[in-house]
Amino acid sequence: MINCILASTSTVYGGTYLDYLFDSLRILYKDAQKIVFIPYARPSGISHDEYTAIAKSAFQKIGKELIGIHTFDNPIEAIQNAEGIFTGGGNSFVLVSELYKQNLIPVLQEAIKNGTPYLGTSAGSNIAGISIRTSNDMPIVYPPSFETLGIVPFNINPHYLDPHANSKHKGETRETRIKEFHQFNTIPVVGLREGSWIEVQKNQITLKGDDFTARIFEQSKTAYELEPESSLAFLK
Amino acid sequence: MINCILASTSTVYGGTYLDYLFDSLRILYKDAQKIVFIPYARPSGISHDEYTAIAKSAFQKIGKELIGIHTFDNPIEAIQNAEGIFTGGGNSFVLVSELYKQNLIPVLQEAIKNGTPYLGTSAGSNIAGISIRTSNDMPIVYPPSFETLGIVPFNINPHYLDPHANSKHKGETRETRIKEFHQFNTIPVVGLREGSWIEVQKNQITLKGDDFTARIFEQSKTAYELEPESSLAFLK
Repeated sequence: MINCILASTSTVYGGTYLDYLFDSLRILYKDAQKIVFIPYARPSGISHDEYTAIAKSAFQKIGKELIGIHTFDNPIEAIQNAEGIFTGGGNSFVLVSELYKQNLIPVLQEAIKNGTPYLGTSAGSNIAGISIRTSNDMPIVYPPSFETLGIVPFNINPHYLDPHANSKHKGETRETRIKEFHQFNTIPVVGLREGSWIEVQKNQITLKGDDFTARIFEQSKTAYELEPESSLAFLK
Repeated sequence: MINCILASTSTVYGGTYLDYLFDSLRILYKDAQKIVFIPYARPSGISHDEYTAIAKSAFQKIGKELIGIHTFDNPIEAIQNAEGIFTGGGNSFVLVSELYKQNLIPVLQEAIKNGTPYLGTSAGSNIAGISIRTSNDMPIVYPPSFETLGIVPFNINPHYLDPHANSKHKGETRETRIKEFHQFNTIPVVGLREGSWIEVQKNQITLKGDDFTARIFEQSKTAYELEPESSLAFLK
C-alpha cells in the first residue's frame, strides 16, 4: 500500500521549488486535495510559517492545498487524518528532534504504511530510511535518537556528490564518509544525486529521474552505480 | 597553564602528515618525550593500531615517542600521567562516543587545564570546543552527548570551506550550516581553514598560520574574517 516519492533535493539547478517533480506529484497525490506539510527541518533556520508559505506556493501550481502541521492543535491527529503528507528538507537533526518531541515517529510510520501518499525531499527523504546516520547535515541540535521511519530498508544519502577531481581540500569525500559508516553499520546506503528520486509503490522500490545513476554502497563491497528505473528492492 | 595547538587539518595540500606543524610541535612538546595518542576518531575506519602507526612515524621526525592510548590497560591513568597528548582527526561522532565510553572527558579536561601539552587536528580540535555541533562529519554512530571539552569558550568548524562560486549543487554551504547552528545555539564559531590553527597558551588564544584568515560567526552578526595572529579570546 505504500506510496512515496523520496527525492534527493527539492530544487534542481536552474529550476524552481519542486518543479521537476510536478508530473510525479500529480500522480502521487491524485486522490489527495489537502496535503499536510511538515516544516520542522527549517532550512536556513526559517520559521515554520515562512517555510510553509514556500511549499504552499509550489503546491498551488498543481492545484493542491497545503497546510503546515504546526497550525494544527493536535499534530498526531493531523497526520492520522491526512490525505497526503510532505516533509521538506533542511536540517535532519532539527527535523528528527521535533518529530520525537511531538511523538510523530510511530504515527508517520503507520500512516505511510497504510497508504497515505508521502513526499520527502532531502532531510524529508532521509527520515524514510532506517536512520539519519548518513545525513550530510550539521548536528546543530541533539536528538533523542538517530533512528527514523524505516519505510525503505536502507539508508539514503541525499544530495550525493562525486569527489571533486582537482580539489586541494583534505576534508573527507562523501564516499569516504559512507565507507566509514559501513565500518560501524551493516545497512546499505543509496547515494541519491540531485534530480533523482526513489519511488515506493506497494512492494516496488524504483530509482527514478532520467538524468542520473545512483551510487550504491553495501558493506564489504565496492560501491557501484545503478541506472534509472532499476529496482532497489534487493537492498536490505 | 593551558598549552594547546588546535589545527584545522593534519595534512595540508601537497604536504605530509603534520609536516607544516613540526616547528610549532617542537615548541609545544619541548618538555615532553612520550606523547599519548588518541586514535579513537578512526579516519576511513582504520584500526587504532593502523592510525597510531601513521602518527608515530610523523612524531619520529621530531624525535618524539608516541604511544596509542588503546595499548594501555588503564586509559584514564594514561592521560593522567601523560607528558603530552595528541588527538587525531577522523569521525567526531566515533571519537566522542569512545571518549564517553572510556570516561575520558573529565580526565582530558583536567589534564589539559593543568598544562599537559595538547595537539588536536580536525575532530581532535573540534572536541576542544564546547560541542561537536559544528562538526562536518557524518553521524555514523550515536554518542551519549554532543558536549565536549570546552577548553576554548567557542566552537570550531575545522576544514572550513568557502562556497564554490560556480557550483550547481543545491546542498547547503558551510556558512549556511553554521548560520542554522546559530538559530539554535548562542556560542561563537571559528571557521578554521586548512593550514590555520589556534594556539592556546595560558589565557591567550591566538589564530596561527600565515596563509589564511579565519571566518568568525557570532549569533545575530554578519560573519567576518580575522587575520592571523589575531586574538580569539574575546569570543565567548
